Amino acid sequence: MSVKIAVLGHGVVGSGVVELFYKNKKSIEKHAGTEMDVKYILDLRDFPESPYADKFTKDFNDILNDEEVTSVAECMGGVEPAFTFVKSCLERGKSVSTSNKELVAEKGDILLKIAAEHNCNFFFEASVGGAIPIIRPLHRCLAANDIDKVAGILNGTTNFILTKMYNDNMPFAEALRLAQELGYAEKDPTADVEGHDACRKICIISSLVFGKHVYPKSVYTKGISDVELCDVAAADVLGHAVKLVASVRRTESGKILPVVMPTLVSYDNVMAGVNDVFNAVLVYGDGIDCTMFYGRGAGKLPTASAVLGDVIEAVKHKVTVFSQSWESAEDDSFIESVDELKSFWYFRVPYDSEIDGVEAYNHDDGISFITTQELTFAEAKAKAEKLSALAYMPVL
Amino acid sequence: MSVKIAVLGHGVVGSGVVELFYKNKKSIEKHAGTEMDVKYILDLRDFPESPYADKFTKDFNDILNDEEVTSVAECMGGVEPAFTFVKSCLERGKSVSTSNKELVAEKGDILLKIAAEHNCNFFFEASVGGAIPIIRPLHRCLAANDIDKVAGILNGTTNFILTKMYNDNMPFAEALRLAQELGYAEKDPTADVEGHDACRKICIISSLVFGKHVYPKSVYTKGISDVELCDVAAADVLGHAVKLVASVRRTESGKILPVVMPTLVSYDNVMAGVNDVFNAVLVYGDGIDCTMFYGRGAGKLPTASAVLGDVIEAVKHKVTVFSQSWESAEDDSFIESVDELKSFWYFRVPYDSEIDGVEAYNHDDGISFITTQELTFAEAKAKAEKLSALAYMPVL
Repeated sequence: MSVKIAVLGHGVVGSGVVELFYKNKKSIEKHAGTEMDVKYILDLRDFPESPYADKFTKDFNDILNDEEVTSVAECMGGVEPAFTFVKSCLERGKSVSTSNKELVAEKGDILLKIAAEHNCNFFFEASVGGAIPIIRPLHRCLAANDIDKVAGILNGTTNFILTKMYNDNMPFAEALRLAQELGYAEKDPTADVEGHDACRKICIISSLVFGKHVYPKSVYTKGISDVELCDVAAADVLGHAVKLVASVRRTESGKILPVVMPTLVSYDNVMAGVNDVFNAVLVYGDGIDCTMFYGRGAGKLPTASAVLGDVIEAVKHKVTVFSQSWESAEDDSFIESVDELKSFWYFRVPYDSEIDGVEAYNHDDGISFITTQELTFAEAKAKAEKLSALAYMPVL
Repeated sequence: MSVKIAVLGHGVVGSGVVELFYKNKKSIEKHAGTEMDVKYILDLRDFPESPYADKFTKDFNDILNDEEVTSVAECMGGVEPAFTFVKSCLERGKSVSTSNKELVAEKGDILLKIAAEHNCNFFFEASVGGAIPIIRPLHRCLAANDIDKVAGILNGTTNFILTKMYNDNMPFAEALRLAQELGYAEKDPTADVEGHDACRKICIISSLVFGKHVYPKSVYTKGISDVELCDVAAADVLGHAVKLVASVRRTESGKILPVVMPTLVSYDNVMAGVNDVFNAVLVYGDGIDCTMFYGRGAGKLPTASAVLGDVIEAVKHKVTVFSQSWESAEDDSFIESVDELKSFWYFRVPYDSEIDGVEAYNHDDGISFITTQELTFAEAKAKAEKLSALAYMPVL
């Protein structure tokens, strides 16, 4: 019997899912162990030229009420109407695989609970790191580890901009304009540039690894819009690349601390070499020490690859995969205050500053150095004020 | 009901499996969805001081005949008696998870067939790349892709030696001695240094990705023992790192070409930054473009992490995972001759050589350059002979 799939949304990712499915249908069916076909594509627009024109519908109920459809790919983006559609599908026992990070970050706990109640699955590999397998490795391959920290470059747009600043000495505004021209950044780039996109992704990772839903509003998030060229250049001299790092760690108090901030990454760390639109995720555990997953974090076929990987898993699994889920959080008391973030820190201070006992780099825009001791964010802020610091960032 | 496990072998990896299991028992049981315990540890030696002394047995039949034992971790290494033991376990329907690359490379097809016939699993995540999740991502997460090439740094010992040659200008023999002192290389380093270990691992990857068993004897394998310092230095000037790369690709003829050779990796490729004992695997597919998996390729707890991840999967899966298997090969006619290996090539030639039209680097030991066109290995060999080349290597 052939398994029937529906694809919600025919934008970049949704059309990629259909394209990649038909390109590799034979081997996909071999991996799934059954024949498969796309029965519906949901979109409000018309696509009369599409080779799959006969599959399009504008009515979600066609999909919901068709019992033949057992697996759904949600590629619409945004919380609504995606949430209502996904919820309805899961309530009918149809598994859903999504690329929608906003949906998972805001409503993941609710949707996972509904999936479990209806013996189906809510999968979201594509919501973090695009093509990079990270969700499944975290809860399956690394299941024997006590994972205490995850840190990643989770936004391709900002990594492209920072790479241009570094490689071509291009100021932020110019690099952003180039990213927009190349289609890597939206017309309104706020979600990428201010770190909101990376924040949603670290929320999903935090929830999965530590077992309780972390909402974006609980996460201290600072983007790259005030990262200056002189700091990127000074960091280089000090042996580091500046990256927008989204991370989460377990603190000494047993709480967790998710945070998104421009961060210095040592050239000794393989993540410093992750450039352009590529993403990477470092996972630290007591068995593995440190593992990194790297690849294209966005784009039509890379994201479609992750969605389809999930669809194949959903077809194979007749029961809920309970290891890939988390509980709702009653409050955010399990989240540590960002003031407690412990790190070495990069500082740029005025020439006349008193900075004894550190190797400092004097340049046109001040004196740059990295602290020789770890400080909390609160302590770093106090130090920054005392020294009238021109810039300061944590070091990974 | 508690699932009972047996661990075959109490060497580095086997003892790591027991240690990591008891360290993280609670969360491992949560991931597996059931209580678990180690009932037997098989080793011919005595471990009277071990906290698990009561679990040791010298008689494999204790394990084989105990119906309570449903999942076995094989960490003995070598083909025999591992093959006989694993075969017997699978025939009784006991799933086996192994770290034994020699066993998988030589007997994988046979053991996978027996597992399928007895509705259990033969898992081997730990046999390639140590802690790095690569086997499961290849056949699950990337299942929607047509994978046409995999290339990796699959041996930590040789990568450590090449890193020392590069970073510290240390000749091969001295770097090997240091690796032996640090416990990274065996007293007889042949298996690592001559590429046999990397060869076994690329055989396993080739078999999984392309579906037919590839034997080590079918793979052209060249180690690093004649890589010279001057070539490592010249490659650097030309923008490349020298790495022992094990790769497999589908060729234009539809055959596959697995090969192990010292290879130049461009600094633009994130794999060039993989240093010391770390391993990395690049996977190329039509959906993902390129993805990299990075981590510790060997060692007690990293390898134990991978074995235990498999044990947890084996406990969760009540049926054979058919996507993680391959067929026996009647002959090696599906393997392309290494003479057809197409690549750009690095050459070092004597001073008086006629080399027009390439950017060449003159140094104390000759002239180094990279070809401007791809050549087959056969063509490169002919060119090397014509130019009386002092060294030549492919470029990834």
